[in-house]
Amino acid sequence: MSDLSLKVSYDGTGYGGFQVQKNAPTIQGELEKALAVIYKEPLRVTGAGRTDAGVHALGQVVHYRAPFEIPCSKLPAALNVLLPPDIVVLKAETAAPGFHACSSAKGKVYRYTLDRAFYPQVMRRRFAYHFPGVFDRQSAERAAKLVEGTHDFGAFRVTGSSVRSTVRTLYRAGLAEFPEKEIIVLTFEGSGFLYRMVRMLVGSLLRVARGRLEPEDIAAALSGERPEAAGPTAPPQGLCLEKVIY
Amino acid sequence: MSDLSLKVSYDGTGYGGFQVQKNAPTIQGELEKALAVIYKEPLRVTGAGRTDAGVHALGQVVHYRAPFEIPCSKLPAALNVLLPPDIVVLKAETAAPGFHACSSAKGKVYRYTLDRAFYPQVMRRRFAYHFPGVFDRQSAERAAKLVEGTHDFGAFRVTGSSVRSTVRTLYRAGLAEFPEKEIIVLTFEGSGFLYRMVRMLVGSLLRVARGRLEPEDIAAALSGERPEAAGPTAPPQGLCLEKVIY
Repeated sequence: MSDLSLKVSYDGTGYGGFQVQKNAPTIQGELEKALAVIYKEPLRVTGAGRTDAGVHALGQVVHYRAPFEIPCSKLPAALNVLLPPDIVVLKAETAAPGFHACSSAKGKVYRYTLDRAFYPQVMRRRFAYHFPGVFDRQSAERAAKLVEGTHDFGAFRVTGSSVRSTVRTLYRAGLAEFPEKEIIVLTFEGSGFLYRMVRMLVGSLLRVARGRLEPEDIAAALSGERPEAAGPTAPPQGLCLEKVIY
Repeated sequence: MSDLSLKVSYDGTGYGGFQVQKNAPTIQGELEKALAVIYKEPLRVTGAGRTDAGVHALGQVVHYRAPFEIPCSKLPAALNVLLPPDIVVLKAETAAPGFHACSSAKGKVYRYTLDRAFYPQVMRRRFAYHFPGVFDRQSAERAAKLVEGTHDFGAFRVTGSSVRSTVRTLYRAGLAEFPEKEIIVLTFEGSGFLYRMVRMLVGSLLRVARGRLEPEDIAAALSGERPEAAGPTAPPQGLCLEKVIY
């Protein structure tokens, strides 16, 4: 028996999300299927982040308990042969005792990509949200600065999700523009994220970028004065779990 | 009646190629379907390049004769609503009298993208050929220089294709490396291309990059001394028709 962690990337377009469910193929499900072939018995994997349907990852991390040892250097290639081509294992490592992909994480980095081309760029279609037109970058950046820090992000989550505390720390929320590629990338690095929090933050920032909200409205959503300034939830295809920090 | 040209982009992954055929959806077929809805009668479009199954385009050009006038400024959006999301019309223009998308073309630019990451980068999967490992860039560049110019490219086409002459001019054949993105892009700009010519040139250059052919072998393939040094045909997903020059 040994605990292992895998770094996993995927194009989430064709999946019902990370977590196993009945009505759609899932990342967890595909990983467990491939691992069951290798270890010849059913295994359960735990992910660092439960990405939603259509959300991607370049650096998801999962852990599992292996019934016997297989060299970490051989695992990714062995798994990639068994996995569908839109899921790729990048690395396998022996996990420290007690390691848990989700609760051991010190932070996560998500990025959200906007396609700013006038008509959608076909090659970005699966990994970006087409958002042409008015974009007040200065205001969006000011709003991004306001969400940085430790706040009660209670307004920025899908209601009904139960968590003990809705206080989280955003170490970094920023915007990078690549004019020659006609894209804007929003990056969020935080201690942890509530359900749909990143997509709701993006939804708010896009309203600011369109001039429909003031940056200060975002602060008012955080303070609880104007919770309706939070969201809407931006579409999933722009979102990618870039990295999990331990 | 007026002649029009459209600039069209597409993700060719799900298509049997540009040209209409019986057993698979095609770019031409989808364009003609959308145009038939707009003009309320069947129309035929002619493309600048008959891209193969799985090959993409950012700047394909097609022409057709319109039974009545619709402002060019409104056509792309109207067509994009009707087209599947992996085909996007970027521009419509009134064509000069006698304009023919293919025979009026002075040149075309193709690019071929190699994913150089050790394991395939999932976001590039549809638009790049995964080619990790040994890559002798200097030799590949030397071989690319040797194919530039006017040559009989008879060895670099799929036999059976009938054309009057197999002499073509390559204005530019080059290689650009983007180490931080782990990709290499091969670009070919020429007066015209034989069937599968770009993919066979890529196939040869990759053999050179692997050290399995000398750059001079490519010259020998062009001179007719060693036709077997041409090819193999590189996979379609790396190829993209970037631009048609008039």
